Amino acid sequence: MSEIRLHSYFRSSTSVRVRVALAMKGLSYDYVAWNLRTGGHRSPDYLAINPQGVVPALEIDGLILTQSLPIIEYLEERFPDPALLPSDSAGRARVRALAAMIACDVHPLNNLRVLRHLETTFGADAEAQATWFRHWARATLDPMEKLLASAPQTGAFCHGERPGLADLCLFAQLLNNRRFGLLDTEWPTLARIYAACMEIPAFRAARPEEQPDAA
Amino acid sequence: MSEIRLHSYFRSSTSVRVRVALAMKGLSYDYVAWNLRTGGHRSPDYLAINPQGVVPALEIDGLILTQSLPIIEYLEERFPDPALLPSDSAGRARVRALAAMIACDVHPLNNLRVLRHLETTFGADAEAQATWFRHWARATLDPMEKLLASAPQTGAFCHGERPGLADLCLFAQLLNNRRFGLLDTEWPTLARIYAACMEIPAFRAARPEEQPDAA
Repeated sequence: MSEIRLHSYFRSSTSVRVRVALAMKGLSYDYVAWNLRTGGHRSPDYLAINPQGVVPALEIDGLILTQSLPIIEYLEERFPDPALLPSDSAGRARVRALAAMIACDVHPLNNLRVLRHLETTFGADAEAQATWFRHWARATLDPMEKLLASAPQTGAFCHGERPGLADLCLFAQLLNNRRFGLLDTEWPTLARIYAACMEIPAFRAARPEEQPDAA
Repeated sequence: MSEIRLHSYFRSSTSVRVRVALAMKGLSYDYVAWNLRTGGHRSPDYLAINPQGVVPALEIDGLILTQSLPIIEYLEERFPDPALLPSDSAGRARVRALAAMIACDVHPLNNLRVLRHLETTFGADAEAQATWFRHWARATLDPMEKLLASAPQTGAFCHGERPGLADLCLFAQLLNNRRFGLLDTEWPTLARIYAACMEIPAFRAARPEEQPDAA
């Protein structure tokens, strides 16, 4: 059995993704918390682990892995059961694209460091930050709703009847949305998939409030 | 031989990545231009291809693929030679993480739609937009320089002696940097890798000025 250590912050959406993946694959791990609010991720101790100063990072097999989707692709290769990607190339491309819509086009614009930079640079207050968050969430989740609602590949989850890479990104995003006043009811298909994820213990256990560093 | 159609915009950094990958794998394709400056990507014609309204999109094998990194992963699976990812899981995780540093942590904050939104929302003028661009580029490229300069896996390229997924993301980013007054000299290792990429016809041919829709 691999010894695994996850460097995480309870509220980090990218950390939620990795926590779901680890739990789905039945991998136990040590949880190491870094407090993004108080700059723990910029401490020399953490920068020695990940010079980029962002969470999550995963220590496994003597490696330090960074970036949530590459970490999950690694876990998928090393621990293929249960699969988080479809077995066919077309299906994998679809699932990776749905995941990238959130991982590249929503979350990077809406995380804590960006909201703080808006405040220091443009004087954006909490309401302006929330408006910014909602703008970018809707810009991608609106077409994602259309894509999922119309595709025959969509099942109980984003791709068929088993949860995978796209679902864990969507789950983490919709969790995050709540903090900025975005209701799932804007996107019925996304809401339905989120509810299906919530039925699964691996998803529930990955939520911020279940983590040891929950405020 | 697959019939391939690339939906692209000459200056799009994510389109550059896919153009390099197609050229490296020796795949010829029809180039379909959508002008992001005049809203071509929001036209009904393009939204029928990609409801998200972003480029690139790739038509291949009767599929429409979106999101640059998932497109490249698909090409890698279907046309494995030459490989854009290492053959070992640890190497793949490293290359994917370097690619994601640019694809998730730099480019999404700095593309045209975001700069325009800063203008309409906060009145950011050209100089404020360039300052924003440089801030986020440095926030990730500074640690990327450290990571690449110190890692034994780094060779003539990001990972060893052959160009791959991380290099094509880096190449596209450094091309983009020039437009906002960022000089490669800030990052000697990145500059060296960029120069090595520029020796390769597939990279040179993917530059904006070589495209049919170049302004």
